[in-house]
Amino acid sequence: MAKRVGAGTIRLEKAAAIAAVAAVGSRLEQEGPLGAEFDRTVEDSSFGEKSWEKAETKMQQLAMELALQKGQTAPEQVDVVLGGDLLNQCIASAYAVRELGRPFLGLYGACSTMAESLTLAALLVEGGAAEKALAVTSSHFCSSERQFRFPLNYGGVRTPTAQHTATASGAALVAKSGAIRIWEVCIGRVVDLGVTDLNNMGAAMAPAAWDTLRQYFADTGTGPADYDKIITGDLAQVGSDLLVRLAAEEGCDLRPRYTDCGLMLYDREGQKVDAGASGCGCSAAVMCAHFLPAMQRGEYKNILFMATGALMSPTACQQGESIPGVAHLLHLTAEG
Amino acid sequence: MAKRVGAGTIRLEKAAAIAAVAAVGSRLEQEGPLGAEFDRTVEDSSFGEKSWEKAETKMQQLAMELALQKGQTAPEQVDVVLGGDLLNQCIASAYAVRELGRPFLGLYGACSTMAESLTLAALLVEGGAAEKALAVTSSHFCSSERQFRFPLNYGGVRTPTAQHTATASGAALVAKSGAIRIWEVCIGRVVDLGVTDLNNMGAAMAPAAWDTLRQYFADTGTGPADYDKIITGDLAQVGSDLLVRLAAEEGCDLRPRYTDCGLMLYDREGQKVDAGASGCGCSAAVMCAHFLPAMQRGEYKNILFMATGALMSPTACQQGESIPGVAHLLHLTAEG
Repeated sequence: MAKRVGAGTIRLEKAAAIAAVAAVGSRLEQEGPLGAEFDRTVEDSSFGEKSWEKAETKMQQLAMELALQKGQTAPEQVDVVLGGDLLNQCIASAYAVRELGRPFLGLYGACSTMAESLTLAALLVEGGAAEKALAVTSSHFCSSERQFRFPLNYGGVRTPTAQHTATASGAALVAKSGAIRIWEVCIGRVVDLGVTDLNNMGAAMAPAAWDTLRQYFADTGTGPADYDKIITGDLAQVGSDLLVRLAAEEGCDLRPRYTDCGLMLYDREGQKVDAGASGCGCSAAVMCAHFLPAMQRGEYKNILFMATGALMSPTACQQGESIPGVAHLLHLTAEG
Repeated sequence: MAKRVGAGTIRLEKAAAIAAVAAVGSRLEQEGPLGAEFDRTVEDSSFGEKSWEKAETKMQQLAMELALQKGQTAPEQVDVVLGGDLLNQCIASAYAVRELGRPFLGLYGACSTMAESLTLAALLVEGGAAEKALAVTSSHFCSSERQFRFPLNYGGVRTPTAQHTATASGAALVAKSGAIRIWEVCIGRVVDLGVTDLNNMGAAMAPAAWDTLRQYFADTGTGPADYDKIITGDLAQVGSDLLVRLAAEEGCDLRPRYTDCGLMLYDREGQKVDAGASGCGCSAAVMCAHFLPAMQRGEYKNILFMATGALMSPTACQQGESIPGVAHLLHLTAEG
């Protein structure tokens, strides 16, 4: 049974566990600083498919397949798949799970999806609804850009605040036991401070990130020093700076423990990715390629992972709406 | 704690409950056979807003507000909102909960969303993660048609297999106690038998509905005669006929207990809605306006509710993909 702590945190009394993870990327991810840590990178970002959407589906299938292999789990042993992506109608996930033939709950949390799927997977395992749950998400630079901004062929000029959507997928098998335990989760609220710039998602998400983190610190009576690392999803440079500033304004110094997946996936200078990486696949891949395996090896013992999502709609923005953000947090520990 | 029964069913040992529900619609819903049962119908389908998308947000806010009022619950008492809709990036829900300021998990299940949100709400309450959870969804004829098919102004001719997207929203407050208990849930698989016609969603969803229902009957050793009613989401005429046929082929006669929300919302002849109603809001509103209140009054004691979703993407269909379907089932009981 889970237990509520404070106004917004959920403590898992038995603690669900992350039993196995896998990350898949493409060429830019391969060439980035974490390239060697991916389970698979496929140079051709079409993944041999005829459309970018189908490529993304293929990539997500590959990530699920590898996570199941590493977890020595057959698809039939998975009680539920929790997945989503950035594409309209979340088609990368819907088509990816079609082949898998397992019960499926589709999620939409924009770039917060990996934290949302892990949160629900953990709560379903903790609550007895599933023995094994698979959390998955992906993003693809080419399918995202044309859906949210411009088709790549336009060659539109990017602003320095823009983030580069990762072509990546991460999958995590959540079960009753495993090296990494999920102790607490904090489901975020939708927070909107009025950012309307589709090319500055970091600024739209940072207030949501601070809202969730502040809630979690208040509920648990902890602070940054209690964790080895505090990792946000993909705030990238602009959003990260803003989160650090929002926290500092309330007397909380995040800097000694803080990092952001959007700043880690690429070499920003060498790879020309403006403010950094973004997309559901960014935090999913950085966690599944880097941080979670490092936890499995005992290199980190105690982390907060908080994926952030900009619930950004071209239609709503054209209608003058601002971009709401959301961030969900998980507290993960590993045995030494 | 929930308990797994058979290969795909989850039994709630304590049983979460539906404590309060509300349904909101517009003019066509008002004029339909269930019009008088809605909590609120707003003649002007713009709901006083400047865009159809904003109208849908407004409608969803209204449904949540009314459900909370009827459940004598303040927004601050809601631990989590589970919601989604048909719009890209699920913006009707994202903007609707922005005002509410409560933790939010965004879902995408197309027209299966009400069953998905109720399922997760029930499992979170059962598992101790939430005391009170709010499940909500909506659809709007005008925002949907232009996104999935054609802008209304084109005046495109509709096929007889087409369904009319409901302009409606339903919200349900799930808590530890209440008149209607959620005993079992069965999360559906993505099933795709190759239907490619965007105007024949019923046919795309029926195989998924039968897949879930067959699984549930097998897991629980029950059959149609064990329930007062078996209610599908919005298969409408084409899909309902197909579901009955698929079941009959395996020796299961659904007809004596079976009905479909898509056949109930409108007067098909008088209101010219072709094969019937569809949209997330259809089953949400038919359940929240009609069946769930009838259960609260003791008129039905034992029902299966199964919302069906066509995970239909114009982009994927243009790329030659078929339309996958999904259906989630809940077993609900009420004291006499």
